[in-house]
Amino acid sequence: MPMSINNARKITLVTLMIFCIVSASSGSAAVAPSIPDALTVIHNRKSVRNFTGQPVDTETLTKIVKAGMAAPTAVNMQAWSFVIVSDKVRMKALAAGLPYAKMLDKAGAAIIVCAIPEKAYQKKTEFSIMDATCASENILLAIEALGLGGVWTAAYPEPDRMGLVRSVLGIPENVIPLNVIPVGHPVGTEKPKDKFKPENIHWEKW
Amino acid sequence: MPMSINNARKITLVTLMIFCIVSASSGSAAVAPSIPDALTVIHNRKSVRNFTGQPVDTETLTKIVKAGMAAPTAVNMQAWSFVIVSDKVRMKALAAGLPYAKMLDKAGAAIIVCAIPEKAYQKKTEFSIMDATCASENILLAIEALGLGGVWTAAYPEPDRMGLVRSVLGIPENVIPLNVIPVGHPVGTEKPKDKFKPENIHWEKW
Repeated sequence: MPMSINNARKITLVTLMIFCIVSASSGSAAVAPSIPDALTVIHNRKSVRNFTGQPVDTETLTKIVKAGMAAPTAVNMQAWSFVIVSDKVRMKALAAGLPYAKMLDKAGAAIIVCAIPEKAYQKKTEFSIMDATCASENILLAIEALGLGGVWTAAYPEPDRMGLVRSVLGIPENVIPLNVIPVGHPVGTEKPKDKFKPENIHWEKW
Repeated sequence: MPMSINNARKITLVTLMIFCIVSASSGSAAVAPSIPDALTVIHNRKSVRNFTGQPVDTETLTKIVKAGMAAPTAVNMQAWSFVIVSDKVRMKALAAGLPYAKMLDKAGAAIIVCAIPEKAYQKKTEFSIMDATCASENILLAIEALGLGGVWTAAYPEPDRMGLVRSVLGIPENVIPLNVIPVGHPVGTEKPKDKFKPENIHWEKW
């Protein structure tokens, strides 16, 4: 039985409406991606010191450190290594010994970025520090990108703090623990700082 | 004159089609955002040494350095400063004096990230180097995020290279030019390296 013109119109209309709904919904899913764009994350990154106490799973911690290992290193020497701690006893020992890492008690984990001078280009400490610092910044950005919070608490260049971290985690003497980065679910109190100062840009020459 | 039912249907159909086109096009713009998500950019960043020769505009260069100034610094001391060079004579002088910056001849500009020890926490050189290194990594990521290319060519810790950069750009003796980062439109030859090594992660302790 041939369709009437009216029925054909109805089918066209319904098809068009389905297409509309599908294309509109796929659009809105893409508008709110789970990971924000890179410049947004760079500008939203903040030092987070207040955590809810919720744990951070192994897969997420691996993803964060993987971002660290994507950083550039001098002559590709990758003069770095990473310790990931989620054991409460070790985290308490770090918190007790480090003056600015008390927030570890509510963090889900801690990442310690280490510099290895003997692996660095020309075995120079400076290159290993820059390698490990670039990795640390990637780690802080990945933490923000994943909706978590973190903060660089310094070990290097303070001999006492490096010694404490080495002794709690069994890190060898020839390895430099650069920092202890608590990672956790943010309470939401911290906001990013606006540090842009036009006077810090010199055009063409100093 | 009242509309016929057929005309009313036509108007409904056309309105629906316009809505479809609008929502589909806004959807596709969101599906392919101009700046990729942060983890994609972190993993896609590569050292780009081959440029097309096209210029990079002032607004883009400012946006890149702004990303640098969003990096964390020890005790928020912001012990950094940035020189942006696009003048061909100065870029040639840098290329001539630096062994690994010959690609400057085809770059659109160069960003020189400087560390300022006397502005750093406890006036320590180490903190200024880490501040400027975090900013440098943000700059490299912003370059990638914007579809451009760049590479860290080292000045620090080599006295000769730091001296050359200082003399070409009039940088004072108490300021450390950390690197020279050529920025330009990539030819497209370079690919990111996969540097993830599970053996570089120590779980719970070294």
